[in-house]
Amino acid sequence: MALLLALVILSIYLFRSPTPQQESSGLGRSTSAYITVAAFLLGALCSGIAGYVGMWVSVRANVRVSSAARRSAREALQIAVRAGGFSALVVVGMAVIGIAILYSTFYVWLRVDSPGSMKVIDLPLLLVGYGFGASFVALFAQLGGGIFTKAADVGADLVGKVEQGIPEDDPRNPAVIADLVGDNVGDCAARGADLFESIAAEIISAMILGGTMAKQCKIEDPSGFILFPLVVHSFDLVISSVGILSIRGTRNSGSKSPIEDPMAILQKGYNLTIVLSVLTFGLSTRWLLYTERAPSAWFNFALCGLVGIITAYVFVCITKYYTDYKHEPVRTLALASSTGHGTNIIAGVSLGLESTALPVLVISLSIISAFWLGQTSGLLDEAGNPTGGLFGTAVATMGMLSTAAYILTMDMFGPIADNAGGIVEMSQQPESVREITDVLDAVGNTTKATTKGFAIGSAALASFLLFSAYMDEVAAFAQEPFKQVDIAIPEVFVGGLLGSMLIFLFSAWACSAVGRTAQEVVNEVRRQFIERPGIMDYKEKPDYGRCVAIVASASLREMIKPGALAIVSPIVVGLSFRILGYYTGHPLLGAKVVAAMLMFATVSGILMALFLNTAGGAWDNAKKYIETGALGGKGSECHKAAVTGDTVGDPFKDTAGPSLHVLIKMLATITLVMAPIFL
Amino acid sequence: MALLLALVILSIYLFRSPTPQQESSGLGRSTSAYITVAAFLLGALCSGIAGYVGMWVSVRANVRVSSAARRSAREALQIAVRAGGFSALVVVGMAVIGIAILYSTFYVWLRVDSPGSMKVIDLPLLLVGYGFGASFVALFAQLGGGIFTKAADVGADLVGKVEQGIPEDDPRNPAVIADLVGDNVGDCAARGADLFESIAAEIISAMILGGTMAKQCKIEDPSGFILFPLVVHSFDLVISSVGILSIRGTRNSGSKSPIEDPMAILQKGYNLTIVLSVLTFGLSTRWLLYTERAPSAWFNFALCGLVGIITAYVFVCITKYYTDYKHEPVRTLALASSTGHGTNIIAGVSLGLESTALPVLVISLSIISAFWLGQTSGLLDEAGNPTGGLFGTAVATMGMLSTAAYILTMDMFGPIADNAGGIVEMSQQPESVREITDVLDAVGNTTKATTKGFAIGSAALASFLLFSAYMDEVAAFAQEPFKQVDIAIPEVFVGGLLGSMLIFLFSAWACSAVGRTAQEVVNEVRRQFIERPGIMDYKEKPDYGRCVAIVASASLREMIKPGALAIVSPIVVGLSFRILGYYTGHPLLGAKVVAAMLMFATVSGILMALFLNTAGGAWDNAKKYIETGALGGKGSECHKAAVTGDTVGDPFKDTAGPSLHVLIKMLATITLVMAPIFL
Repeated sequence: MALLLALVILSIYLFRSPTPQQESSGLGRSTSAYITVAAFLLGALCSGIAGYVGMWVSVRANVRVSSAARRSAREALQIAVRAGGFSALVVVGMAVIGIAILYSTFYVWLRVDSPGSMKVIDLPLLLVGYGFGASFVALFAQLGGGIFTKAADVGADLVGKVEQGIPEDDPRNPAVIADLVGDNVGDCAARGADLFESIAAEIISAMILGGTMAKQCKIEDPSGFILFPLVVHSFDLVISSVGILSIRGTRNSGSKSPIEDPMAILQKGYNLTIVLSVLTFGLSTRWLLYTERAPSAWFNFALCGLVGIITAYVFVCITKYYTDYKHEPVRTLALASSTGHGTNIIAGVSLGLESTALPVLVISLSIISAFWLGQTSGLLDEAGNPTGGLFGTAVATMGMLSTAAYILTMDMFGPIADNAGGIVEMSQQPESVREITDVLDAVGNTTKATTKGFAIGSAALASFLLFSAYMDEVAAFAQEPFKQVDIAIPEVFVGGLLGSMLIFLFSAWACSAVGRTAQEVVNEVRRQFIERPGIMDYKEKPDYGRCVAIVASASLREMIKPGALAIVSPIVVGLSFRILGYYTGHPLLGAKVVAAMLMFATVSGILMALFLNTAGGAWDNAKKYIETGALGGKGSECHKAAVTGDTVGDPFKDTAGPSLHVLIKMLATITLVMAPIFL
Repeated sequence: MALLLALVILSIYLFRSPTPQQESSGLGRSTSAYITVAAFLLGALCSGIAGYVGMWVSVRANVRVSSAARRSAREALQIAVRAGGFSALVVVGMAVIGIAILYSTFYVWLRVDSPGSMKVIDLPLLLVGYGFGASFVALFAQLGGGIFTKAADVGADLVGKVEQGIPEDDPRNPAVIADLVGDNVGDCAARGADLFESIAAEIISAMILGGTMAKQCKIEDPSGFILFPLVVHSFDLVISSVGILSIRGTRNSGSKSPIEDPMAILQKGYNLTIVLSVLTFGLSTRWLLYTERAPSAWFNFALCGLVGIITAYVFVCITKYYTDYKHEPVRTLALASSTGHGTNIIAGVSLGLESTALPVLVISLSIISAFWLGQTSGLLDEAGNPTGGLFGTAVATMGMLSTAAYILTMDMFGPIADNAGGIVEMSQQPESVREITDVLDAVGNTTKATTKGFAIGSAALASFLLFSAYMDEVAAFAQEPFKQVDIAIPEVFVGGLLGSMLIFLFSAWACSAVGRTAQEVVNEVRRQFIERPGIMDYKEKPDYGRCVAIVASASLREMIKPGALAIVSPIVVGLSFRILGYYTGHPLLGAKVVAAMLMFATVSGILMALFLNTAGGAWDNAKKYIETGALGGKGSECHKAAVTGDTVGDPFKDTAGPSLHVLIKMLATITLVMAPIFL
């Protein structure tokens, strides 16, 4: 699919007219086309590798974690964290190195900054294809992986837990292998690709904005502003490694001592990483963003970074509050299960909807304060207007992502622990071993939810940047200013309406794909239980392969529809309104409508993703809370209602929600790449 | 609460500076304050009456319909339709007459159009308070009524149907009376107030836009353009009456003949009304909108009206497709129930999310085509630019609402039939009588869902008009042009983010209010069943009163939080950004941010309401479909899962969803009234 799309992009770029800058730099039409397509393909390839590495590490680490759990909880935790850390460092490192290689190749090849050729400030725009390629593959990885894992999970739970009353991960359940495979496919591979493209898109958009600002302010050496994001993420690799390595065990504590709360250990590592990131961020701003034109600007930008770091931290706290069963919301949700399936679902839906409020307030505050800090940095354009605002929000985004590798480690930790639990259960280890992996699994649920909060927060900020980059690019192509997207124009309002609708429709298709596939799994599992009555007495082996085959082929089939929707609709809307604009005498109509579509889709997408992720996480943990023995414990009516909630939450939190993160950023990069055809 | 708010408005208007127009017309600050407050209170009063009439008629009609059901289905249908029709005509009539009285009073009192006093084109702006008063009361009617009815319904179902296995409306259920009362409170009263304020808001905004356009085009006699909406709705009363009266029975058919499909009969009446409305609409445009400056303009506006009428018709069809069990979606949903509670909920949520797509496409098409028809009508402003576009969308909205009385009749019919069924069950009539009321009830579910589709479609169009009116008003107060709401400005984007978030939070609080109250009802009903074991053998009478008391006091208490959120948040956002704008040198920032908030809230509100209404309606009918004997019929596991879906859908479709219609329009009217304090 990426190859096909590459051909489409190639033909669009070959038949469009180049921008004046490109013309002046002697960058021909075909060169620009090949560069964009090459960047796209490299982005797609790296995104694929990021996903693959996540999966590769995970399947190798699972069994070691379960083996370590036989010895001590601490050791199991350490192995799971280090395995997650390895994938995380590879993913983040690949984003940094990929962009660095592209950047330096183009720099040398195009003889940038030599007289008569391209300026360095125009170079980042050539990298846009890389971000698009990354999002493109990530979208399908997330959609396909999400459908695979949750269809298997829901199907296994509905028949195994609810109908037959056998425990989770019981080897008698024919869908249990599909479920375990799904954790690796859906969580490790998909989240790796997701965060890879987050970081790539954010680095590129920040580079574009840094270049634009340096140009407007006539800063002599703009390379500091352009390379800043790469340096921040290089530091991320170092400080996150320190954070990860800080989690090590006094192994001698032995298995007899009470299990220390793994969440507290992870949190300690996170706190250390945060402190280091504040230090290195301040250092990087002083080093790269110092300019004699505005001697105090670097300090304002350092504060912007701090805003971003605080935002990330607050996001993690809010998500924990809404999804951890130590707090009020999940306990209320568990209580609602005691009056039945219906009240459980109503309470979960309202919890999810309500949980959007605080993150939105935090994001709003951080956008406004980072913008204001940037605006008052003292950087002025030729006309004497302050211009640093947008770059300020870019720096805040970098601040938010400056601990990305550690956050990703905590996320990868979740499915590894989950699978280790599955292996322990299937290899019939003693109850005490299962207890250790259960605790790790519960912590993994919370860290998975917090990563999602983090991913959506950074998606919100990054989209705002990509949106600005889009407006810059349209202005460059149209050769006229494009500064406003006025929603009082009916067509633009309609674009917004369509953008929000896209989010609803995409979520619908993602959820229903899981629902449909889960029904297939349920029917298959029921069939096996009926046709092979020996399964329940361990006399017959269930046919695990058929369940894996069902979810694998279904997920490949079902991901096409929502994926195609996401890619085709901005292009169709842009082209239709371009034609309408042509006949009604509005030359920029297509670009404006797409801009509104993008903004409304971003806003709705953020809210919808927050709703889906938090509701799903809360349902999962409400069930876990009841399984600790509260409100009647396992097997009670209350637990059954909570399992229903968990089932509903599965596609919410692991298919539709995370796919929306990717969708938001892919919409932004697709409009950037396709901008020329809307004019 | 309305009196309190009236005092607040009074003080705001007494301390603000009047607009230049008002100054030139000699309309003093205090006169304008008293006029706005008087209009507000009259609107609030009429909205209250509209709700009360709906309830008053309904409780009287119920018993007659159940009595008629003992004789013939046709007679029962006729009585239910006529009772609904009576309320509908009162509601629509009151909106028309209230505005007409206000208009003519002000006209005479302020000596409009005499030299030195006010111009007739500025008169409609004085009526804005009426719309706000109407929405204010409607919001609380809908919220309170919605919480009352659904808490009772969910509570009664969860214990009665699911736990004890007794039929719906069984007199042994202690919550059954609360449920029956709730149908009148929530559906009749609330929907009456809802559509009353829809029509009032739409008439006033269309009058404002008509006046503005007439002024821009320098049309000699603008009264035709201003009074046009009143005439359209007067015709509505006549043609809807014809449609209602066309539903009459050959009573002789007797009870032996098979029951004719009541939906088909209602549809026939609707088709007749539609045909008549096309005719009268064409007539009115030729009569009132003919101007020598653009001789063919009236024909373009007639076409705009046609666009609106077609939109209404298509909306009704789409809603029917997604909620009627004759069609694919509900059948798929019913099938998903056969694999358990979880898959039922997932399928329902995705159905609801998916059902937003087609209505949005239809609304988009109708906004663009009505705008384009208006724009090409030949009406030019002084500078020679076409100006009729916005008035074109206004006319389309009128076209959409031109059969409002008939639509409202079909809606009121639903709860009357529902309650009649309850009375039949409680008075232990033979099964054949219950069958007749069951059929009517199922049809009522569909018509209720279609009315909601209709209400949300008209809300979408009306909000777009109110938004334009708001921009006009801000421009008048600020004495500078206010034409653009540019979402590329970070603060404005944040306003949009907050607007969408408001919708999510409001829906969350509305749903959780129902969930919490339902839990109280469940516990009370369980307590009664335990403490009075004789209830199940009809030996003891349950204490109906306590359940009514619980839901009544809970609904009054629970409606405060979401209601206050809706009223306070636009004011707080507007004031905060006004202050921020003051310190950062953007004088119109407050007004712009509120505008973005309004637009994003409208878009998200439309989508969320469509999702909630359709999902709820589909779940309800999927359950009804299974109760007809499909997939195992009543009492099967599949049915239980479907009942869970129905329970979840109850607060969606009858509390949160319809409250959002009102919320969208109230946000628009509140910003109109409060505009002066954002500057």
